[in-house]
Amino acid sequence: MELWFSEKHTENAKFSIRVKEQVYSEQSPFQKIDVFETEEYGKVLVIDGIVMLTERDEFIYHDMIVHVAMATNPEIKKVLVIGAGDGGTVRELTRYSTIEKIDMVEIDEVVVKASREFLPFTACKLDDPRVNLYFEDGIKFVEGKENLYDLVIVDSTDPIGPGEGLFTTEFYRNCYKALTEKGILVNQNESPYYAHNAREMKRAHRKIKSIFPISKVYQYHIPTYPTGHWLFGFASKGLDPIKDLNTDKWNSLGLKTKYYNTDIHVGAFALPTYVRDMLEEDTN
Amino acid sequence: MELWFSEKHTENAKFSIRVKEQVYSEQSPFQKIDVFETEEYGKVLVIDGIVMLTERDEFIYHDMIVHVAMATNPEIKKVLVIGAGDGGTVRELTRYSTIEKIDMVEIDEVVVKASREFLPFTACKLDDPRVNLYFEDGIKFVEGKENLYDLVIVDSTDPIGPGEGLFTTEFYRNCYKALTEKGILVNQNESPYYAHNAREMKRAHRKIKSIFPISKVYQYHIPTYPTGHWLFGFASKGLDPIKDLNTDKWNSLGLKTKYYNTDIHVGAFALPTYVRDMLEEDTN
Repeated sequence: MELWFSEKHTENAKFSIRVKEQVYSEQSPFQKIDVFETEEYGKVLVIDGIVMLTERDEFIYHDMIVHVAMATNPEIKKVLVIGAGDGGTVRELTRYSTIEKIDMVEIDEVVVKASREFLPFTACKLDDPRVNLYFEDGIKFVEGKENLYDLVIVDSTDPIGPGEGLFTTEFYRNCYKALTEKGILVNQNESPYYAHNAREMKRAHRKIKSIFPISKVYQYHIPTYPTGHWLFGFASKGLDPIKDLNTDKWNSLGLKTKYYNTDIHVGAFALPTYVRDMLEEDTN
Repeated sequence: MELWFSEKHTENAKFSIRVKEQVYSEQSPFQKIDVFETEEYGKVLVIDGIVMLTERDEFIYHDMIVHVAMATNPEIKKVLVIGAGDGGTVRELTRYSTIEKIDMVEIDEVVVKASREFLPFTACKLDDPRVNLYFEDGIKFVEGKENLYDLVIVDSTDPIGPGEGLFTTEFYRNCYKALTEKGILVNQNESPYYAHNAREMKRAHRKIKSIFPISKVYQYHIPTYPTGHWLFGFASKGLDPIKDLNTDKWNSLGLKTKYYNTDIHVGAFALPTYVRDMLEEDTN
């Protein structure tokens, strides 16, 4: 049998993964959630037809969304994670014994249920005693919060469907307020190549830059996202991800990571010229 | 009409580009050569079913195969290019007025003919007076050459078919001999993610490392190659791509590049931990 899952990256380009079996499919109140078992990528989580993560390459995404901030400020104690229902971001955070509290706000409880059952490799630390799960709208959750978190991670889908409000100026402004003095915001910042992704990349960066004194963008290579070239935003009230990187401190922790290291931490902020130019554009 | 070109990146993953028209198809004595006109990527050159380059993202490959070496040693005057029948590598080299001579050795004249006709955006500088075209086997061409080139670029296909001999120890040893005292070798060094590419990545690096005192690997993001994460090797008789990088000198040239800049030059050598580990393995 030939069974293939295909994702159209644009109308004119698509990526396909051979499927052994569709192990889960559910329409939640928010979105369609599917899990496939595949030869090439192990388990694959698909939401509304778009690959969210695969068992084989999720380490790249989760290393880069967590460790860059943690190596910049090893004093981070209180973390807010928005989205990330698969649990991978929380898994990486729980590796730091210095973190005291992780509030995770996921709008769709069905994603967490599916992940606990089918994606134990990411969901495995959701029961850590420091983790508080809130099945709420992250946009509302941050409203009115002040000076509470050392790190806010916006682990969102693309800005369509439930993820849309996580790309607004008001939301980023509330994140700013929710952060402590040394606070850091890390956000899923889309991709520079295909036009629709590049547009959202520019818009998110422009908004965040208008609020945070420090706002940079860093890249990672992930095989199963369109073009393989994706970005996270790093914004803060003062800490610089390169000048304040505490290389010795992070390396002394002895954390074993498959993608992240303190060299690629620095290297990831060196962007191609065409990406740098797009991020510097003032246009909408 | 729906017409799609598909490339199997592995038996279980494939990438497809919608085709407007197949504008060229020929079986040369060495390989099958096709050119497609596409909406997403403009003209696409395919050899034996594998994407070699596209009009839209070839700038990434050609920036990175040329400018890293040129910024490390701005004194490069004599260059040997092996493969690269599309002309893109030569195009970037001819931008340096300081280069006096470019020998380009392409085994398959049909690739050059097709590129001149359908890919003028890469083939446009093949008639530069400094360029000498040899339609010969690059492996034989370097045999017996001594102390002749400041830079050798191995712009090869994967190590199957005509490209296979360009991945042997003997060939790399002949490149070493063909280089001058400050000589640099840049080679297409495959990709770390899929097993068959990773195997060739490790083998090429191990062989080159056994011959050259300095041997490093650097990465670039290219949408139309499998996983988007590909590598070049940088080897030399003494020059270090980071310590000897002449940032001011290169920037003073005023070359406009869409991907390369002297920041990403340095950043590209910062590899993910799993890639670094694979390259350090001693196994075959």
